[in-house]
Amino acid sequence: MRALITGGHGFVGRHLAHHLVRCGDDVAVTYLPTREPGADPEHLALPNPVQSLALDVTDTEAVNKVLSLLKPDALYHLAAVAFVPDGESDPRRVFDINTFGTENLLAGVLKHSPETRVLYVSSSEVYGHPRLGTLPLTEAAELRPTSVYGVTKACADLTVFKYCHRDGVHSVRIRPFSHIGPGQSDRFAISSFAKQVAAVKLGKQEPVIKVGNLDVKRDYSDVSDIVRGYREALLNGKAGEVYNLCSGQSVLLSDILQKLISLADVEVEVVQDPTRVRTVDCADIYGSYDKASKDFGWKPRVEQEAMLDSLLAYWLDFLSAS
Amino acid sequence: MRALITGGHGFVGRHLAHHLVRCGDDVAVTYLPTREPGADPEHLALPNPVQSLALDVTDTEAVNKVLSLLKPDALYHLAAVAFVPDGESDPRRVFDINTFGTENLLAGVLKHSPETRVLYVSSSEVYGHPRLGTLPLTEAAELRPTSVYGVTKACADLTVFKYCHRDGVHSVRIRPFSHIGPGQSDRFAISSFAKQVAAVKLGKQEPVIKVGNLDVKRDYSDVSDIVRGYREALLNGKAGEVYNLCSGQSVLLSDILQKLISLADVEVEVVQDPTRVRTVDCADIYGSYDKASKDFGWKPRVEQEAMLDSLLAYWLDFLSAS
Repeated sequence: MRALITGGHGFVGRHLAHHLVRCGDDVAVTYLPTREPGADPEHLALPNPVQSLALDVTDTEAVNKVLSLLKPDALYHLAAVAFVPDGESDPRRVFDINTFGTENLLAGVLKHSPETRVLYVSSSEVYGHPRLGTLPLTEAAELRPTSVYGVTKACADLTVFKYCHRDGVHSVRIRPFSHIGPGQSDRFAISSFAKQVAAVKLGKQEPVIKVGNLDVKRDYSDVSDIVRGYREALLNGKAGEVYNLCSGQSVLLSDILQKLISLADVEVEVVQDPTRVRTVDCADIYGSYDKASKDFGWKPRVEQEAMLDSLLAYWLDFLSAS
Repeated sequence: MRALITGGHGFVGRHLAHHLVRCGDDVAVTYLPTREPGADPEHLALPNPVQSLALDVTDTEAVNKVLSLLKPDALYHLAAVAFVPDGESDPRRVFDINTFGTENLLAGVLKHSPETRVLYVSSSEVYGHPRLGTLPLTEAAELRPTSVYGVTKACADLTVFKYCHRDGVHSVRIRPFSHIGPGQSDRFAISSFAKQVAAVKLGKQEPVIKVGNLDVKRDYSDVSDIVRGYREALLNGKAGEVYNLCSGQSVLLSDILQKLISLADVEVEVVQDPTRVRTVDCADIYGSYDKASKDFGWKPRVEQEAMLDSLLAYWLDFLSAS
């Protein structure tokens, strides 16, 4: 199966590329042309063989060219401004990339490669701040996004629905909850914790861990479970449908931190850093993956301790080598 | 109360302006600067006194200027590309006006007039093609838009939620179902039927009525009920909430046509015109207004026959004078 991944140089895109190559797919990935090589040194290396193409998804002409040339069997659309706080300073830009980028791709598929199956990676952020009593969140939950990021992802999510329902583009939408793993930027909380803990362990940092809000509960999955779900959903999910991928339960961020500290067996002081505290935070969020389970048999496989273990091991390796 | 209506020169905007003036509000309306005067001769005249301001809602600077100068107590945001088929040819433009126009206004309110209460006029088109068994549609129904128009309205709807929930802008969203009344463009089905029936009645047209799909059921309200609901929702709706305004039942378009023919007491032949047939049509849609009723006591007052009577009377007057 010839697969194209947009945003294939990102954290999740690289994991997905590895997974697809392991599954025997013929994989091409796109990356933002203006992205500096080596901008994210923490990222996994891409697998081999994989074709890399520069593509700005907001460039309609370039999108049409790539789709008409490649006509992939599968398009995994991950390219997006993915860090929530980035959206707030320039909503227009985030709309352009996250929403119009998606519009461009779907219009391009319809025009140049109508047999392509599309998997759109939406986000649990579209649920935003749920009403009381609505946990676990199912796919039928009300969309109540509280960030520009969440709004732009919801808009793209609905755009993909439109292209499927009205125009017949075979597509499935995924709303993944938080996922972590090797190669994730340390701008994300748990990756940052793991990196700091690893640095302490290696004696490269004073035994002080800087944190934001620790009293929030989130639903964390291992990135390997998530990317496996993307391929399964593309192959066996129902066209037009949307699926949560998640662990089905929430854990307190402070518990995750304590587990990382205990796994590394270090003594540290935990200090709140005001620059890391987000202003809007929902106390508790978790989803239900029943629909994914029912429709294409997906469920998470990596348990929490294994997930944290591999993350910590990654940062220990990374920091040892640097 | 000082009220500002965007899109105040449109069909619904003019009805709303009349209603607000009757309620004693001090009313200003904005209109698209490029709109040609007299472009819509069928529209109602604006009430007196009312201040008219040229404003392109996609122009961030102009939006900020108007809001910082006027600081209205109430902002009714109606400006939009409102005719569904218009969206399909140029999605980007419709996004700019319907979605970014809304983003601009809410950002402007937050910055320059944070005390303003905002009423955003979304659309029942955000529900698109409902799943089986979900009628009547409540506000909790899944968003399944099947048109560019529906997608752009849903995006704006969620943008307004974000500004309320996160940024504290007092706003209420309305998802009105179809509404009709004097001054509506004859590009809309029922207005076109009424105009043609009136023309036949006046001997200005052969007794042939051209129609599109007649076998669809829709939920129609009188525009006077809808604009009354806008003011009631702005004053008494719960901030952050979204409300359907509708009749609560659907009627077959062919029945509406027959009633108009019978009200006018004319003999006509009904002919399907392929250019009027829309490609995607949901067979039946109707909403529930229970939430509006519960939260601010709204219910429709104008019965179907009265609604059709006034529409027909309007076209008879209009065509007699022209």
